[in-house]
Amino acid sequence: MVLAADLGGTNLRMAVIGENGETKYRSRSSTPTTRRRDDVVELLIDSARECIEAIKPHAAVTAFGIAAPAVLDHDAGKILIAPNLPELNDFPLAATIADALNIEVFLENDANAAAIGENWLGASNGFSSSICVTLGTGVGGGVIIDGKPLRGIDGTAGEIGHICVEPFGHPCGCGSVGCLEQYSSATAVVRMAGELASQFPESKIASPIDRSSLDVYNAAVLGDPLAIEVFRRFGFYLGVALGGLINVLNPEVIVVGGGVSDSWEVFIEPLRSEIQKRAFKRPADRVSIVKAKLGDDAGILGVAKLAFSSSNIGLVV
Amino acid sequence: MVLAADLGGTNLRMAVIGENGETKYRSRSSTPTTRRRDDVVELLIDSARECIEAIKPHAAVTAFGIAAPAVLDHDAGKILIAPNLPELNDFPLAATIADALNIEVFLENDANAAAIGENWLGASNGFSSSICVTLGTGVGGGVIIDGKPLRGIDGTAGEIGHICVEPFGHPCGCGSVGCLEQYSSATAVVRMAGELASQFPESKIASPIDRSSLDVYNAAVLGDPLAIEVFRRFGFYLGVALGGLINVLNPEVIVVGGGVSDSWEVFIEPLRSEIQKRAFKRPADRVSIVKAKLGDDAGILGVAKLAFSSSNIGLVV
Repeated sequence: MVLAADLGGTNLRMAVIGENGETKYRSRSSTPTTRRRDDVVELLIDSARECIEAIKPHAAVTAFGIAAPAVLDHDAGKILIAPNLPELNDFPLAATIADALNIEVFLENDANAAAIGENWLGASNGFSSSICVTLGTGVGGGVIIDGKPLRGIDGTAGEIGHICVEPFGHPCGCGSVGCLEQYSSATAVVRMAGELASQFPESKIASPIDRSSLDVYNAAVLGDPLAIEVFRRFGFYLGVALGGLINVLNPEVIVVGGGVSDSWEVFIEPLRSEIQKRAFKRPADRVSIVKAKLGDDAGILGVAKLAFSSSNIGLVV
Repeated sequence: MVLAADLGGTNLRMAVIGENGETKYRSRSSTPTTRRRDDVVELLIDSARECIEAIKPHAAVTAFGIAAPAVLDHDAGKILIAPNLPELNDFPLAATIADALNIEVFLENDANAAAIGENWLGASNGFSSSICVTLGTGVGGGVIIDGKPLRGIDGTAGEIGHICVEPFGHPCGCGSVGCLEQYSSATAVVRMAGELASQFPESKIASPIDRSSLDVYNAAVLGDPLAIEVFRRFGFYLGVALGGLINVLNPEVIVVGGGVSDSWEVFIEPLRSEIQKRAFKRPADRVSIVKAKLGDDAGILGVAKLAFSSSNIGLVV
């Protein structure tokens, strides 16, 4: 068995996972907001000890995988930049945890971990090349080629949310304009609904207070023209980005996850239509566009897989 | 020594290559325009025999690599679709040539071959991850990850020219609109000069007869405002596409080749500026944007490398 953690800006989720992906024990806690590095490290160690103790009567834990929202130096087992957990910047997290627990520790970027998890037990199982796109507050991504996560020379690969889909489009937090994230995220749904509201005075979501991305989805399902137009644009721009990626990577499957993927039925048609128009026929006919299966567990299962495959992939401390 | 061929729609170029990439013998002939498969096969075999005979007193040729402008089935050694040589569609070219010459034959897509060649002896030598973009009549591409060409599940990967850079842009021959190829190719330079001519009546290239892509380049070097604007757009859109690719692939180097890469000095500044704006800082600072070094020989050297590495990469017949 292995220990697996998904360290987010809000929550730390941890589980003991068996070799077929079974969850044997789970813990959940709030990520400290003190911005003190020691508090995060201590929580990781305490939660890990709790999990290890809980499972001890039955089995031993042989390795520990941690998914972090960060750019990593894999060889050094180090977090380089963690925008939502800046107290961990430039910190050798793997070695620190490994020393405290006397166990092998593996780090992986959270988006890559989710792609690995879906590839192990989820929607891309059985495929050697896949793209995982996560539609949430922002748009994240992970790419798997020949069964391995594509990390890039600096560990920054996979940033599908920052493909340009409108060269003179909406400003993005990354400093660019017109990134996919500005059109196909929960944030974008709310913004686009506001931008288009005056053109649809009859819409049920014409008032700003009824315009969470879930409100817009619910309205779209009920036939609201403004909400339908918002998700048409959402799917259109996702298709613009994925069409190009299909031409460059020719993957077998694209897994669509994240909270907004629950709005699948209101964006999948414009998405598929744009892919058919924009990608070459052969790779477009080949690629399956599927919903993610593992939900919030994808990252945990991904680092569990890494921990199990420790001799092949990832960092051994 | 190995034999290497670059089979194009216009010319067949062939060479005997030594293990350090030295050219020992060269032949060149016009690709038959009869649209008869046997004529192309016969020319390949005759040219190969000429090369083998010419070098015989000095050395033996141990393998034969062929770069073709086609989508390939590598496992079967088969050409699937060759838009400019349709007589070769669905044809087991490798086995046919191997039988005739009694030699191992390896096929590779021409854009991938160029990327491999530049990686072996050219501008991306020493790097394990690179992108090769070829700016000619169209825009081609090859991606190398972990030292290996990215072919994709159907052999269609690398089509950088068909990343969308203007979602409602100029129609493309591929059936989409706004592809990079419509903004950063020789064809695009001529078209954009025409589209913008009326805004620059003082331009030396205001007359359509003076508007080959080379004319536009020459005018840009001399300070012609229309020509400068055309190449500014050329570099801008190339930066839009490459900025996104840098975010997704995080490569070490991008090699820019093809005939229009000779216009480097008039598009490199807008290209670099767009990459700095659009790609994340870390991968943007990392990536080198460099001119291709091998010119027309990149493809031949790429398949020569494949032939030398036959036990590792490619198809053994």
